[in-house]
Amino acid sequence: MTAPRVAIVGATGLVGEMVLRILDERHFPLSRLDLFASSRSSGAQIEVLGQSSAVQPLDLQHPPDFTSIDLAFFAAGSDVSRALAQKAADAGTLVIDKSAAFRLEPDVPLIVPEVNAETLRGHKLIANPNCAVIPLAVMLAPVARRFGLEWVSVATYQSVSGAGRDALREFERQLAGDRTPPVALPRRIAGNVFPDNGPFDESGYNEEERKIAAEFKKILSDDAIRISATSVRVPVAVGHGEVVAFAPREPASRDQISQVLREAAGIKFLEGNSYATPLEVVGSDDVVVGRLRADAAHPGAYLAWVMSDNLRKGAATNAVQIAEAALSISVGARA
Amino acid sequence: MTAPRVAIVGATGLVGEMVLRILDERHFPLSRLDLFASSRSSGAQIEVLGQSSAVQPLDLQHPPDFTSIDLAFFAAGSDVSRALAQKAADAGTLVIDKSAAFRLEPDVPLIVPEVNAETLRGHKLIANPNCAVIPLAVMLAPVARRFGLEWVSVATYQSVSGAGRDALREFERQLAGDRTPPVALPRRIAGNVFPDNGPFDESGYNEEERKIAAEFKKILSDDAIRISATSVRVPVAVGHGEVVAFAPREPASRDQISQVLREAAGIKFLEGNSYATPLEVVGSDDVVVGRLRADAAHPGAYLAWVMSDNLRKGAATNAVQIAEAALSISVGARA
Repeated sequence: MTAPRVAIVGATGLVGEMVLRILDERHFPLSRLDLFASSRSSGAQIEVLGQSSAVQPLDLQHPPDFTSIDLAFFAAGSDVSRALAQKAADAGTLVIDKSAAFRLEPDVPLIVPEVNAETLRGHKLIANPNCAVIPLAVMLAPVARRFGLEWVSVATYQSVSGAGRDALREFERQLAGDRTPPVALPRRIAGNVFPDNGPFDESGYNEEERKIAAEFKKILSDDAIRISATSVRVPVAVGHGEVVAFAPREPASRDQISQVLREAAGIKFLEGNSYATPLEVVGSDDVVVGRLRADAAHPGAYLAWVMSDNLRKGAATNAVQIAEAALSISVGARA
Repeated sequence: MTAPRVAIVGATGLVGEMVLRILDERHFPLSRLDLFASSRSSGAQIEVLGQSSAVQPLDLQHPPDFTSIDLAFFAAGSDVSRALAQKAADAGTLVIDKSAAFRLEPDVPLIVPEVNAETLRGHKLIANPNCAVIPLAVMLAPVARRFGLEWVSVATYQSVSGAGRDALREFERQLAGDRTPPVALPRRIAGNVFPDNGPFDESGYNEEERKIAAEFKKILSDDAIRISATSVRVPVAVGHGEVVAFAPREPASRDQISQVLREAAGIKFLEGNSYATPLEVVGSDDVVVGRLRADAAHPGAYLAWVMSDNLRKGAATNAVQIAEAALSISVGARA
């Protein structure tokens, strides 16, 4: 099998840039690299894999020739994915799509490699989940496999980078003294928090909360799990925190749950009352689970504090791991 | 009844200063005002109630003459309260104690005036609850009265001012570029969040979380309520947020819960998907409840987003309201 020809669509966004870095870190085998971005940021030169690459403009009317691309990471938002991802997959390209466009499509696998890598077999279009649901799935899938999972309730502490580069720049301007009204986010975020992440619907949940619930059930292939989320933005640059309450279906002691988490792939389990913070987790690919304890509100249930780098395992690392899994089971490369 | 002679013990702390401001705002009747603080900050002149008052040094070996003080607000921490509060009450002074020293003593009423003002009758030493539990009690006591309350699960987004002036100054220094290790808080808070608020015990809960649970049950006079908390510090100066999940004992519709909250004293109920943020709630005495919706994890339960100014209703306003309630039922004034 020859090394694949790889493209990044949305190469200058926070996630696209991180995909490049992760490919480099993991010595991902590739024979060519094409970088695409909106005309706003095309023309830039990006230093990657030891060489300088020009960012090519992405024109939805004249899309790239995907027949010469074996693997494409899409990280340019739902509109671009809707316009091009299926076309690329039809041309034979293995597409890993970071957007929400296809995640809940029944025939599109939604992959967290530690959980359900096998379901990508035979697919050319694969969806990468939301950055808040990936750590939740990494943490709770092993618990569900061992004891079942009755319900999950999560309150998030999501960093600004999860909302993209414009939001992060807005936050940085605010920290530097800018008092103008926010544009990229619904409220000022410096010195503030708000539970508002995408449009609300009649259920009272915002878009991010609905994504967390629906994607979690799809990744775990279990529609019977009851799950609710409150998605809150906090004035942190990178690193998503989550207060996770969950109930196993079968009785399980704290020691038993600890043992499952300690042994699970992708998890760094902190013993006792230890915990991680955003500043500590940045740069790591681990989902760090700490402060596991009995939930005094719900007999048999547990509480934990979960942290992950939302740009890495929450986005880019997971996408590259999907590509690695796909290539290893030989569905990815055209060769 | 003559206007009481009032003292503030801990007049230069964040809460002491706010007590002064609230007394002023509410035109609290008083015939004299004595301000006490540690020798570190005594000697300062404070502009209050239209005149400049000198801060007197507090010497635990030579305490103030409480026989000439009718009402004392204690806001100087648990050590000072343990040393002086009972002595002051024994001398006939009505003591409103902001510290945690006496909150769980069976013979000391723990008061949120909207909830249990009547239980202060006949007492000279009255405890003011924790700043995270006051909004929770204001919000849920009316629900409990109407429908009962089965369980409560809360995840907090607590501002730095709740940890006192040293923590707030440390936060401000960090925002200005200071990279030295934190002293007042267990982790750097600028650009960070952490679920660590007082020592952990073998239950896995930290001190603040145990306070929230124990004080809540005491204020509502109901030990059967199951309650768990996760207390998280966020990089916000003032304003505590809480994700609150709760289950009424009797079935209650979202409309019925809304109606109870809409009519309850001390609550500003926001309809539909509306919510408040810390920056919006600063300066208000309301407990602002928004985003009430069915909890998809728990049939019959609800989720809400609750905000309050932790220095006002969470501390100083509640203390002054206790004093007002005590004076109105004639236990406060010595006259």
